[in-house]
Amino acid sequence: MATGTEHTVKAFDEDIGQLRGLISQMGGLAEEAIANAMQALQRSDTKLAAKVRSDDARIDEIEAEVERLAVRVIALRAPMADDLREVVAALKIAAVVERIGDYAKNIAKRVPLIEQHSGIEPLSVLPAMAQMASDMVHDVLDAFAARDADAAVRVCEQDNALDDFYSSLFRALVTFMMENPKTIGQVAHLLFVAKNLERIGDHATNVAEMVYFAATGNYMAERDRGGSDV
Amino acid sequence: MATGTEHTVKAFDEDIGQLRGLISQMGGLAEEAIANAMQALQRSDTKLAAKVRSDDARIDEIEAEVERLAVRVIALRAPMADDLREVVAALKIAAVVERIGDYAKNIAKRVPLIEQHSGIEPLSVLPAMAQMASDMVHDVLDAFAARDADAAVRVCEQDNALDDFYSSLFRALVTFMMENPKTIGQVAHLLFVAKNLERIGDHATNVAEMVYFAATGNYMAERDRGGSDV
Repeated sequence: MATGTEHTVKAFDEDIGQLRGLISQMGGLAEEAIANAMQALQRSDTKLAAKVRSDDARIDEIEAEVERLAVRVIALRAPMADDLREVVAALKIAAVVERIGDYAKNIAKRVPLIEQHSGIEPLSVLPAMAQMASDMVHDVLDAFAARDADAAVRVCEQDNALDDFYSSLFRALVTFMMENPKTIGQVAHLLFVAKNLERIGDHATNVAEMVYFAATGNYMAERDRGGSDV
Repeated sequence: MATGTEHTVKAFDEDIGQLRGLISQMGGLAEEAIANAMQALQRSDTKLAAKVRSDDARIDEIEAEVERLAVRVIALRAPMADDLREVVAALKIAAVVERIGDYAKNIAKRVPLIEQHSGIEPLSVLPAMAQMASDMVHDVLDAFAARDADAAVRVCEQDNALDDFYSSLFRALVTFMMENPKTIGQVAHLLFVAKNLERIGDHATNVAEMVYFAATGNYMAERDRGGSDV
């Protein structure tokens, strides 16, 4: 027969499993939001852009669910050390994934403002940048699910490439504006789109640091971290 | 003689008092960071900008302190209903204030990139916009300290004015770039500065919603909320 302690441990494991499941669900929705926002942008598809905006409510809902569950777990199960670190990590990671969803929503909101973009060459490299950011989100949530500290470090390393991508795109957009002053109003919105993608990478990096800490109890070494300057 | 319950209530009140104190401290530092970042920008003062960047570590530290304390309070005191709402609000508000500090830091990071800005006219209205954003941060943390739901609603209303300010500044910056194509590289950074200030207002609005919920147990009505479209 199960003792009280075994019962508590099992209930805790179930709670953690549920937290992981919710976060993985949020991550899937965030990846989808990024992909849809970029597709809407490429095709000037304002209907798809509107869908990204309305779908974001679901990500917000799941975050609220994670929060309620995490608080209940802390209050009822009073987890210690490793287990507490894991619950707090889940709470914080959910908040970050919710913000990643907001960045995708923000990109979608700009779609109606950049309609005649067929001539804006730097736009053609945005999907590759978005894919890079989205892969980081995917990889870091896999690392969380697997408690894989090494995989978390690799996500941080990817962020350097994303930052370089952003810097070169920033320069390309500025150059394009100089050569095509009439497009400045629209291209300015693309600067923000590029920045949003770069920020998604920063957030994936933040999650990677949390995963590393949850898995090892130590903070990641400074040299392994990514992060753009501006 | 105090009963066990009275003892617990007193200990909880002390913990909440400590959480409030830490958040108020963070808020003061965030306001200072915004003011210093704007002064550094106006005066091209890269030394002050560097100070804003390094001072941000203190805000991050206090956030970590709030997190540790809030988790301990939930685990040890198992607060219910109103009290639990308050602790969770403290945890979330600290995370938002930390982000407000990051926006100020981001503005500071751009100072070395916008050196010869004496000729950029729209720059002259940035301090007024920064003051508006900073006042929102101040007012919303006062509302939190006083559990004042009405004051929280007023902060959300201020956000509409900030959003209008941002929109008109965005147009002014785009116009300036069109007329002065050589400045585009630098003025693009000012677009981000303006955006950062607008985001600070959004975050103050988010805090206002949390304060409202913590104080009343209800969500703020949609019509009272602020929030820019992009």
